[in-house]
Amino acid sequence: MLKSAINCVKLHSKICVNLQSIRCLQLTPDYTQNSYKVTRGNYNLLKDRHVDFFQSLLGKERVLMDENDLERYNVDWYKQVRGKGQIVIKPKTTDEVSKILAFCNDNRLAVCPQGGNTCVSGASVPVFDEIILCTDLMNEIIHLDENSGVLVCQAGCILQNLNNYVSEKNLLLPLDLGSKGSCHIGGNVSTNAGGLRLLRYGSLHGNVLGIEAVKADGEVIDCLNTLKKDNTGYHLHHLFIGSEGTLGFVTKVAIQCPTQSKAISLAFLGLNSYEDVIKTFLQAKLELGEILSAVEVLDTPSMELVNEHLKLNSPIGNHNFYLLLETKGSNEEHDQDKLNKFLELVLNKKLVVDGTATTEPTKYNAIWSIRERLPEAFALDGYVYNYDLTLALEDYYKLVSELRDHVGDRSHRVFGFGHLGDGNLHLQVSAIDFSNEFKDYIDSFVYKRVKELNGSISAEHGVGFLKAPYLNLVKHKSSVSLMRSLKNLMDPNGILNPYKVLPY
Amino acid sequence: MLKSAINCVKLHSKICVNLQSIRCLQLTPDYTQNSYKVTRGNYNLLKDRHVDFFQSLLGKERVLMDENDLERYNVDWYKQVRGKGQIVIKPKTTDEVSKILAFCNDNRLAVCPQGGNTCVSGASVPVFDEIILCTDLMNEIIHLDENSGVLVCQAGCILQNLNNYVSEKNLLLPLDLGSKGSCHIGGNVSTNAGGLRLLRYGSLHGNVLGIEAVKADGEVIDCLNTLKKDNTGYHLHHLFIGSEGTLGFVTKVAIQCPTQSKAISLAFLGLNSYEDVIKTFLQAKLELGEILSAVEVLDTPSMELVNEHLKLNSPIGNHNFYLLLETKGSNEEHDQDKLNKFLELVLNKKLVVDGTATTEPTKYNAIWSIRERLPEAFALDGYVYNYDLTLALEDYYKLVSELRDHVGDRSHRVFGFGHLGDGNLHLQVSAIDFSNEFKDYIDSFVYKRVKELNGSISAEHGVGFLKAPYLNLVKHKSSVSLMRSLKNLMDPNGILNPYKVLPY
Repeated sequence: MLKSAINCVKLHSKICVNLQSIRCLQLTPDYTQNSYKVTRGNYNLLKDRHVDFFQSLLGKERVLMDENDLERYNVDWYKQVRGKGQIVIKPKTTDEVSKILAFCNDNRLAVCPQGGNTCVSGASVPVFDEIILCTDLMNEIIHLDENSGVLVCQAGCILQNLNNYVSEKNLLLPLDLGSKGSCHIGGNVSTNAGGLRLLRYGSLHGNVLGIEAVKADGEVIDCLNTLKKDNTGYHLHHLFIGSEGTLGFVTKVAIQCPTQSKAISLAFLGLNSYEDVIKTFLQAKLELGEILSAVEVLDTPSMELVNEHLKLNSPIGNHNFYLLLETKGSNEEHDQDKLNKFLELVLNKKLVVDGTATTEPTKYNAIWSIRERLPEAFALDGYVYNYDLTLALEDYYKLVSELRDHVGDRSHRVFGFGHLGDGNLHLQVSAIDFSNEFKDYIDSFVYKRVKELNGSISAEHGVGFLKAPYLNLVKHKSSVSLMRSLKNLMDPNGILNPYKVLPY
Repeated sequence: MLKSAINCVKLHSKICVNLQSIRCLQLTPDYTQNSYKVTRGNYNLLKDRHVDFFQSLLGKERVLMDENDLERYNVDWYKQVRGKGQIVIKPKTTDEVSKILAFCNDNRLAVCPQGGNTCVSGASVPVFDEIILCTDLMNEIIHLDENSGVLVCQAGCILQNLNNYVSEKNLLLPLDLGSKGSCHIGGNVSTNAGGLRLLRYGSLHGNVLGIEAVKADGEVIDCLNTLKKDNTGYHLHHLFIGSEGTLGFVTKVAIQCPTQSKAISLAFLGLNSYEDVIKTFLQAKLELGEILSAVEVLDTPSMELVNEHLKLNSPIGNHNFYLLLETKGSNEEHDQDKLNKFLELVLNKKLVVDGTATTEPTKYNAIWSIRERLPEAFALDGYVYNYDLTLALEDYYKLVSELRDHVGDRSHRVFGFGHLGDGNLHLQVSAIDFSNEFKDYIDSFVYKRVKELNGSISAEHGVGFLKAPYLNLVKHKSSVSLMRSLKNLMDPNGILNPYKVLPY
């Protein structure tokens, strides 16, 4: 039986985690250059005359060099990697970015583009002493067309701020991530971020209409189209979506924002087996159709984790699996009717053991917190090895069980959760501390199995530094060769985000 | 008052126009090389030894050289352009395409890729004597994953056939075009075709998950990803979406297919003014939300045209503007309720003068025919100059009126219709016959105004041959320069679809 009737609410302000304010509590890692077999490229070292140029262009206050200031720009949020960048530069305009990159290119200085530094693949911090070119101050919202819903803004706007802005016009951003309180839209686009809304609104390749980016040599590529349809010439902006700052530095983004739904409901279900999870999901696609907006799954260890570290409780007792189903629609009565019929069906079929459904904001937020605050909880559970995979639904949870057997008591726990609706599994292993040998032990097992199962070793987190060595494993030789040609074409000196994406 | 109550139906088989079977009735045009200022590139002429190679590879029956056979491959459907290709080659496999292109590249033979030859920008036929490399026989459906809805097929599959295939599994293709009975999916992808379902399901950049393509030198680029999320390396398949066969020859496509809706309704509305059209559209977005699946507009001349040439009548009498609104949803009762409330609202507000709504298949098809058979009707109205534009909604119809004034009695009629929901206007001018001078007269006016209004000169039809001279007008110099660099990188001898997309 459902534990809660569905009530009417108009406002939803889902919890927003500012990752910077709850920095991961684990120890600062060793420098990446010490932990990994990677050789510094043939770039020049930062000299006083370089610093003089940057300071003369931006003023001293936008050029950080104090060691204490630099730390948070050199270490990623999960504390997996640590660079030795000696300078952080904060441009405000495209023209400044253009001048900085032209100078760096002329002087063979390597550059690490950085947004909110929430990347979990090590793309957003230097590997050695790359100059950190940061979008912190590029946070202007340029235009919102209320008729078409197209938003144009600078790359450094924080996702949550953009969402708040467009929500006043009854719109929403087509992506939503746990890190939305910190991540920058430029970073989202550069890494082709996926997240919680992809199921409903599709990927950034479909939603980003235009981009302005600066090439390594400082040339500005203005393909900031704001129209829903524009088939004039090659669709250049897709080059910058998901290339993780290695082909260009994104400075502006045009993105289409769908109309906000009038009604939102959330169901949280307890299930006995993964088989029942799949059957319930397929039933939800049929019964909820166009109003289905998120389908997330969690396993027992994930629920125990948030309970232990964050004191968040399951509202429906303990089960082997939990499904979170969100609906968004234009008519509350219709949506409630659909959701109730669906729940009745899956309860009668005994696919679901217990469940609760709500539209009440406090409860809605409390349930979403369980899913969205998982990264916080992981950070409190020792060192976390994380994998972001796509697998066919029939293989999705199989790999979690296999990995659990593989690591045995060498880990605290192995967790499986993620965006089931997209086949996207977040597979995490927590252990006391980092060990290169243990990392290799898990990596080789996971990547080998994912390849065998025709899955993806990076569903939404990108390749970054940490997965670059595996690119050859999962991509065809001709594809990697074409990627290298593109890199050489657009950044012949290789100054933009070196050691990332392409195998180093 | 509504003239028809909404009735329950389960099956919809919208009319399918096979463009090849109703070939445009206007006269065969002069050869493109005579009509346009274009100079043949430095390619070799076809020799017997080349023909011997193709025949030895494919057999004589897959190498067409008879003049009568060649005609339909050399002339586009609208009879705007005419090539002098002397040979049509029909590979069946990727390996054959690879061998053919490698040979052509080694022998400096120019190649024109061709799918269903339904392009209206002159991309799909030769300009001079390019070899026509046709996907007619590459029509194998390779795999359909029923859980994820991902379809993998060869490039030569006809869109309608694919749709029929997946409909048996309760799925549909995310694109729908008037030419669906003829066009090939490889051509759709290569031209980033838009069409009637873009409003609901988004663009091909969002829906095509992977592509296999052959580069000019014969190298196969296998990026045929079939997962909804895969962020490993550069997203190469986007290079081939919308580059109109100039960067590679698409051989296979993986595309995600949404679940078919259980309920479909159609409303056809008569309105007094374009201002009311906009207001009604915005109201529809609010009231119909997630079930809105198509929003098409027609003006009076368009309606008169289909009435005159095809004897199709408006089911609601004559009005200044007509709006066609389609809804697709998972619950018929809910959809009807939403649509009825919306119609009551816009009738009460006097935004709509008259209207009819239906779910009954015959009536549904009859109404859609008015919109979908417009290309047939144009072909019977003399020579048609056609423009495919995107404009902000406030400028959308203004341009039609301005052009009407500009051409005066030099044209039969000026028509404005299109995908209002995407801001996509099809602006057509019919005249007795083709005149280069008149074409320039219209072109220069339309393109200048579209640029002033920050619109697009090709919303969904691509650049092809006909719009290539205007690329520099609408794109930034640095963007065109990057496009040229990409072309040189991927096709250094320029053998793939020369004189198309990039200014010749």
